[in-house]
Amino acid sequence: MSKIVLYMWTSLDGFVAGPDDGPDQGLGVGGERLHDFLIFDGPDHPAAARARDDVGAAVMAEAMTSGAVLTGRRTFDHAGGWGGDHHDGVPIIVLTRSVPATPPPGHARYVTDVREAAAQAKEAAGDRDVLLHGAAAAQACLRAGVLDEMALQVVPVLLGQGRRLFDDVPGHVELELTHSADGPGMVHLRYRVLGGEG
Amino acid sequence: MSKIVLYMWTSLDGFVAGPDDGPDQGLGVGGERLHDFLIFDGPDHPAAARARDDVGAAVMAEAMTSGAVLTGRRTFDHAGGWGGDHHDGVPIIVLTRSVPATPPPGHARYVTDVREAAAQAKEAAGDRDVLLHGAAAAQACLRAGVLDEMALQVVPVLLGQGRRLFDDVPGHVELELTHSADGPGMVHLRYRVLGGEG
Repeated sequence: MSKIVLYMWTSLDGFVAGPDDGPDQGLGVGGERLHDFLIFDGPDHPAAARARDDVGAAVMAEAMTSGAVLTGRRTFDHAGGWGGDHHDGVPIIVLTRSVPATPPPGHARYVTDVREAAAQAKEAAGDRDVLLHGAAAAQACLRAGVLDEMALQVVPVLLGQGRRLFDDVPGHVELELTHSADGPGMVHLRYRVLGGEG
Repeated sequence: MSKIVLYMWTSLDGFVAGPDDGPDQGLGVGGERLHDFLIFDGPDHPAAARARDDVGAAVMAEAMTSGAVLTGRRTFDHAGGWGGDHHDGVPIIVLTRSVPATPPPGHARYVTDVREAAAQAKEAAGDRDVLLHGAAAAQACLRAGVLDEMALQVVPVLLGQGRRLFDDVPGHVELELTHSADGPGMVHLRYRVLGGEG
């Protein structure tokens, strides 16, 4: 059965971007430190990245086997919509508060309800997993109870400020650590979301 | 040379206590989840605790070899000052904004300056390490550049709210992951603090 899996590079103090992130600076001030172990061949977005370390490379390779992408609008816009093709032409479901007048590029579509977005992404992914992008979308999925797993790459740095991965999440969500590994330069933690009381 | 080492049990979203923590409820609402793997034989504070898991037990045993304790005033008060003896009668340096009229119990002493507190704790510890307690004290040590290492036990739960371990820390502090281990129920991460630009 298809699962929704969040892939994130985060600082130890829980920031996925530094302050003042925007279209021209997707990771904010100082946030590029989080992607030190990624190599960007093409446009500056994770879909085009490779990892320098073996464990990170395995994480990236797994993410790229996903059958659909579920992303927040901010992440989508910052990445230039991945030119409409995140990887292998899989459907890109973009969670947005309001649908723009201009249709999205390529394989993307806009959805305004998080449960509907999750359902469409799973349907589109078939028997493969859904790659979830973006802190706001992750928080929305957590609040809606539709996030299945998290693959977190914890970079050994404190950023002190910026965009938090877990900023507005429901109280007391139990997790299960299913895997951990040290890559050079970071620790990889994989969790299953068991459920909340929130 | 003596090092200042922070020992903390934290949720994955970075909380070391739930909301409304106070003297009668040191871990706040829902925060007791963070100490599920600790067994309290005596008074309800970490100094009297044992760990249920082997990795946690090793962490606790190491902490108890420290030659001095450095703690924030809030943690000290919540723990009833450990009756004046945290472990083995080692000196307890209590970082406080203002020194109370009543002298502290047992082996404790109040210090108002974080660098002075760190220096006194290291001096007192001799060739052993200093056990650092408390989120506020940890943040003060980070800001002052006197924190050497962190032993974090990351419990697989999102608390959503409460007291953050890293709430007011300087920007961009580089760390080095020196050890990681899975205990049942949590992941143990050990970092060396390399230094900051903050």
